[in-house]
Amino acid sequence: MTTAETKPGTATASLDAIFHPRSVAIAGVSMQQPGFAGVGLGFLLSLMELGFPAVYAVNPKYQEIEGLKCYASVLDIELPVDHVISSVPARIVPRLVEDCIAKGVRSVHFFTAGFRETGDDEMADLETQVVGRLTGAGIRVFGPNCMGLYVPESKLAFMPGFPAESGPVGFISQSGGNAGEMIYTAAVRGIRFSKVVSYGNASDVDESELLSYFARDPKTNVICAYIEGVKDGRRFRQALRDAAAAKPVVVLKGGRTAAGTRAVMSHTASLAGSLAVFDSLCRQLNAVRVNSVEEMADLAVAFRYMSAPAGPGVAVVGGGGGFSVFAADEIDDAGLQCPVLPESTQKALGEINPVAGTSVRNPVDTIAIFEPPKLEQTLRIIGEAENIDVILYHTSFSWGRGRRSMAMLGADPVHYMQMQVQQMVKAREASGTPIVVVLRPPLDVESMERTAAFQEKCWQAGFPVFPTIPRAANAIAKVLRWARSRST
Amino acid sequence: MTTAETKPGTATASLDAIFHPRSVAIAGVSMQQPGFAGVGLGFLLSLMELGFPAVYAVNPKYQEIEGLKCYASVLDIELPVDHVISSVPARIVPRLVEDCIAKGVRSVHFFTAGFRETGDDEMADLETQVVGRLTGAGIRVFGPNCMGLYVPESKLAFMPGFPAESGPVGFISQSGGNAGEMIYTAAVRGIRFSKVVSYGNASDVDESELLSYFARDPKTNVICAYIEGVKDGRRFRQALRDAAAAKPVVVLKGGRTAAGTRAVMSHTASLAGSLAVFDSLCRQLNAVRVNSVEEMADLAVAFRYMSAPAGPGVAVVGGGGGFSVFAADEIDDAGLQCPVLPESTQKALGEINPVAGTSVRNPVDTIAIFEPPKLEQTLRIIGEAENIDVILYHTSFSWGRGRRSMAMLGADPVHYMQMQVQQMVKAREASGTPIVVVLRPPLDVESMERTAAFQEKCWQAGFPVFPTIPRAANAIAKVLRWARSRST
Repeated sequence: MTTAETKPGTATASLDAIFHPRSVAIAGVSMQQPGFAGVGLGFLLSLMELGFPAVYAVNPKYQEIEGLKCYASVLDIELPVDHVISSVPARIVPRLVEDCIAKGVRSVHFFTAGFRETGDDEMADLETQVVGRLTGAGIRVFGPNCMGLYVPESKLAFMPGFPAESGPVGFISQSGGNAGEMIYTAAVRGIRFSKVVSYGNASDVDESELLSYFARDPKTNVICAYIEGVKDGRRFRQALRDAAAAKPVVVLKGGRTAAGTRAVMSHTASLAGSLAVFDSLCRQLNAVRVNSVEEMADLAVAFRYMSAPAGPGVAVVGGGGGFSVFAADEIDDAGLQCPVLPESTQKALGEINPVAGTSVRNPVDTIAIFEPPKLEQTLRIIGEAENIDVILYHTSFSWGRGRRSMAMLGADPVHYMQMQVQQMVKAREASGTPIVVVLRPPLDVESMERTAAFQEKCWQAGFPVFPTIPRAANAIAKVLRWARSRST
Repeated sequence: MTTAETKPGTATASLDAIFHPRSVAIAGVSMQQPGFAGVGLGFLLSLMELGFPAVYAVNPKYQEIEGLKCYASVLDIELPVDHVISSVPARIVPRLVEDCIAKGVRSVHFFTAGFRETGDDEMADLETQVVGRLTGAGIRVFGPNCMGLYVPESKLAFMPGFPAESGPVGFISQSGGNAGEMIYTAAVRGIRFSKVVSYGNASDVDESELLSYFARDPKTNVICAYIEGVKDGRRFRQALRDAAAAKPVVVLKGGRTAAGTRAVMSHTASLAGSLAVFDSLCRQLNAVRVNSVEEMADLAVAFRYMSAPAGPGVAVVGGGGGFSVFAADEIDDAGLQCPVLPESTQKALGEINPVAGTSVRNPVDTIAIFEPPKLEQTLRIIGEAENIDVILYHTSFSWGRGRRSMAMLGADPVHYMQMQVQQMVKAREASGTPIVVVLRPPLDVESMERTAAFQEKCWQAGFPVFPTIPRAANAIAKVLRWARSRST
């Protein structure tokens, strides 16, 4: 069974058109809350929020919804419809499918679930039939059982609050929840997406086709993928090879253990397959495998906001002796090094840092950095050391509700933050050494405001930000390993 | 060299008196900001914030500081002084020591650093001399190079914003920074302390004496310890044995690797020793070893807010298919089990949960729980399953800036949260199964407000709260292992 036999019109070009629909209809929009019935409405509100220009609500029960005319059927829509989101129950799907074919739509996304993943043979057959009928008519299918498309450029979104701006990261996710989690959590760290596709049961558009698409997409520089199971191993291998040869690829595999494999089966009816096989494939093709959505976001941040370090030498800079002790251990755990700074560097640091209660060896534990000009000097001197390839600068805005460091800011914390980031930029320019920021998570509302503001200033100035030393060290180590494999 | 020879008056009873001083003088209080000079002021402000009744500022340069009379010397204070905090430079310390002896104080805490940990022989000698002079006069010494005492009952604190209320957790920390981090981060998760001692270079009061004290302290039910190095292995072993026999002991070791060991030496001049030896000691004596301050806070929360589960069977309950897949893997990774729920349980769940897009096997992925009465039913039914020993309920208030779940709350999120916690309490009472809450970290200010409010309601109702499934699973697994070792 080749792709060509089962999928008329599956040339990648067609996916590109599908990512840019001129109009979208949502079947099964309902005003009921809460529960699944509300999600059709969620799609509608998300599209309206991004300002998608031509969205149609379809539900025979309503005349109007959220100020929009509500159509009884897709066929009643006067203008052409490119893309249809199905939020109707599974039993109504066959009727919707015929309407879509008659209307001449290009693509259908089934948010509708309750097919193959239920474990029920009859529902699995229905899935095969429905998808076969659509693809046979040249219509591409996303899902079933997924959240579909987020393409900021096209003003398409599937959850509220997604950023309106595009960016260089492409993401395919077999889980809609993981897609949402990645988009939301990475957004606050400066990650913007070219396209995100939640593809669920992968009955038509699948991980291999999407990887091949992203490998060639000029708007995508980093590819992330959450995959539960792969149906055609050979095809997947080729797609992953193409993608990983073209750009950094970060892969997250669901279902590593027996319990996880069972959960995968319930979730998207996928066969999780062996993690060992998957892992060795990633190693061979130089794709970066990660173990959680958090780690995937970390790698997206690292590939987006830092150049690969020249070597494993890390300097840790910040205030706090206990914290420094852990940092040294954690850098070592990640497979990096935390070398003693050269004598000349220590001497230069000693001139601007009080010796008592600080260390200038590495980790550098000093409070001098709370004065922005000393921060610049400290980072520059360290960045110029010959055994340092990357600086890990750690700070916090929640340390104490009273915030010892914040107490030193004087009247205007925003100005202080700006100065701090400016000094970091100066130090990076002067020494040429990448600086990675570890910004410890806030503990209360006030520190959340300041942490969020500082984080944004950091990534806007091109600094990757991580919440802990181990997460930063892990990302740096993986980028370093990726760069070394690539150059050999 | 026995303890008695070097330490007159070191009976544990004296420590108890020292934890309850009637008056405190701070030598070296300064108005200078920022830098170390400001920290004497930090001690003063922290004591004033908790309302310590008799605090004296000492600095010959000032007449008055923060509205308090400032004394030129400890000897000028008219009333008796029990405890002295030294924030003066190391070179002034010998003079201060003589004043303290003449004044007849009971204890001195040296925040002052720059002694043995500098690696300078002369400064190491000075430390030995100073501490010997004081202990010889029957005066106990904390430090040097530490933050000293936090005893809420006595209104003593060393950083601003520490909770004013006492609680059942005792904590000794060789690092003041780690002590502060633990206090702040655990506070928002419902942890309150009996006493916290930051003991730095441990020249007099050390980890062994403190462990022995906490083993017998009726106000302490859980002991946490951050230790960089131990000087007398035999004495430490006995103290740890006594403590671990009496109550749960959570131990965090600094300096696991070569780089970490070097950082320990710079920090508190401690010999880090072998982690393997330390680890095997903890295993023998049933002390729970952890690897980070975060993990120590997790274990404090687990020992404080949950009874040990009867076995390893975990049910995961929450909304989100991808999240559930990871949860199953992560529970398994932690050495727990995520068993398939019994048929009868699945059937009962099926009656209150829509099947499409959910799973009732385990992990239980359902949005029915967003309606509080269904949450109670779901948790109760699962808690009654014979193969489930603990329920891991996961939720979030940041999922989307738009917050799909929050959209369902209607007008009053506070009321919704109250209902949710009430239903959780009902389910716990009805089924007798412990419930652990995983509350994903907030992404912005609005979700921080809601997350913080919900977290507080949870721990006030006796639920342990963790930010991720792996951290919750790890804490549960360690409590289970601890309970099993204890019962054999």
